[in-house]
Amino acid sequence: MSGLELVSKNRCFNGYLFKYKHTSKVLGNVTMHFNIYLPLCAIDSSSSSPSPSPLSNGSASKVPLLYFLSGLTCTEDNMIIKSGAIRFLSELKIALVTPDTSPRGAGVEGEDDAWDLGTGAGFYVNATTPKWSKHYNMYSYVNEELPELINANFNVDSQRVSIFGHSMGGHGALISALKNPGKFKSVSLFAPICNPIDCNPGQKAFTEYLGKLTPETQPLWESYDACCLVKIYDGPCLDIMLDQGDNDDFLKRGDLLPDHFMAAAENNKELVKVQNRLHPTFDHSYWFVQTFIEDHIRFHAEHLS
Amino acid sequence: MSGLELVSKNRCFNGYLFKYKHTSKVLGNVTMHFNIYLPLCAIDSSSSSPSPSPLSNGSASKVPLLYFLSGLTCTEDNMIIKSGAIRFLSELKIALVTPDTSPRGAGVEGEDDAWDLGTGAGFYVNATTPKWSKHYNMYSYVNEELPELINANFNVDSQRVSIFGHSMGGHGALISALKNPGKFKSVSLFAPICNPIDCNPGQKAFTEYLGKLTPETQPLWESYDACCLVKIYDGPCLDIMLDQGDNDDFLKRGDLLPDHFMAAAENNKELVKVQNRLHPTFDHSYWFVQTFIEDHIRFHAEHLS
Repeated sequence: MSGLELVSKNRCFNGYLFKYKHTSKVLGNVTMHFNIYLPLCAIDSSSSSPSPSPLSNGSASKVPLLYFLSGLTCTEDNMIIKSGAIRFLSELKIALVTPDTSPRGAGVEGEDDAWDLGTGAGFYVNATTPKWSKHYNMYSYVNEELPELINANFNVDSQRVSIFGHSMGGHGALISALKNPGKFKSVSLFAPICNPIDCNPGQKAFTEYLGKLTPETQPLWESYDACCLVKIYDGPCLDIMLDQGDNDDFLKRGDLLPDHFMAAAENNKELVKVQNRLHPTFDHSYWFVQTFIEDHIRFHAEHLS
Repeated sequence: MSGLELVSKNRCFNGYLFKYKHTSKVLGNVTMHFNIYLPLCAIDSSSSSPSPSPLSNGSASKVPLLYFLSGLTCTEDNMIIKSGAIRFLSELKIALVTPDTSPRGAGVEGEDDAWDLGTGAGFYVNATTPKWSKHYNMYSYVNEELPELINANFNVDSQRVSIFGHSMGGHGALISALKNPGKFKSVSLFAPICNPIDCNPGQKAFTEYLGKLTPETQPLWESYDACCLVKIYDGPCLDIMLDQGDNDDFLKRGDLLPDHFMAAAENNKELVKVQNRLHPTFDHSYWFVQTFIEDHIRFHAEHLS
């Protein structure tokens, strides 16, 4: 298990939840943690180890894989603890990886001063400004370095992968899918930030990580904005499920802008199919995510089978 | 809503999760928090309030009720966040109350010094020692004061109530049922402390709260011990479900002692029916609770219908 150190392991339903830590090169050599849930069929039961070992060898079979990207302030733990996802991952024999939302302990000045910038707020971009560019490269972390580690070390099928996320992580899931045609079989979103270049938290983060918006930086900003990306997406037809509560304070203050995304996607409706569901009285919390997690996992399972 | 102050409210599945705070008399006037989940049918939809109000009036119907008692170090939140229970409460139209595990901020000297005594470790007894007796009366809190508040303020059926718990809370659920014949329709347990007077954490807590074990205090100690209580239980036939993982560190070090409880219950097998399930490779965590929560809620639903 090269480069990975096991932190904890817990049986849950018909599988195990593992937490690992590793040193991330693209994040400037900080220590990162992630969780991976593996159904029993993906764990090598022939191992002589007294405990099941999630090595990618032996008789275990490769299973499809989901990535879940979390929102502002979250760690790798929030979703796995609060969503109730494992019941359905176990039933459908799908693996799940939950990464962290930013580097931790990078030591960038001010990174711990605000809830919506720096630690817990990587925004799934590769920073280009001198202050942030050594460490804040979460786009490459979740799209390159982490998948390489996962594919090399676990019994997952790298050809059957989907992605979903919540809030800032919905933004991350959307841009990951739109920038990498064919890589993900499906995408689903809980209350995503759909149009970061047009909302306050997105503008704040992009200004810091990518530099102030100018004619020169505008293409870079737009390269991380789902509303821009969806118009120019070219690849296999992409199925998207987008759930949103109507009692969501972030929606009300204009941080999410799903209407912008629906309008933009309309420009590319032959290639991008969006199922948009608005849920009365639901808010932005993981109570909302927990309510609809089953729908999302079954949606992905259909695309991964 | 006399004496209750709403702290938060979140839609989840077909119901709402409410958090309230109140001043507890039996705990010496500390502020306590609890969560209550109510299915929509128990919430007064005719209220003129813009938000659903969980008042016990109007057209809403009374629903059966579960109490869940948590283990050492937990607050009222651990189970409701980590167990995935709400999916099934919503489906089966059952309310759930999750109390805290001790007084908070009582100011007793040393109450925050250890994880297994004082704050987060009330052990569901009424303390008799001068140091603890003003505040540490969790038995009366969960069996008297809190149910009176719940019954007076919410659309729950006080005649259809069951109880369950985890670890120290399994002990609390067991003694609550065994000391109050007929009050609870069923009891279920995740890895309960079954015999506190015969294990280290129980002896430590009882020594502090009830006084050192002597011929004089022995009856008091035994009045809070499920293995003693089950032998003398006399009341309606009591159905108990007891789940235990075999990879549970607390089991291995002799803190739980389910075998003692099974042997003791055998003495009263006409009145106490225990379904005891041992689950290979499961540990003591909420990942274990989450795996079997559906079984427990369906078990109670059968007894509450």
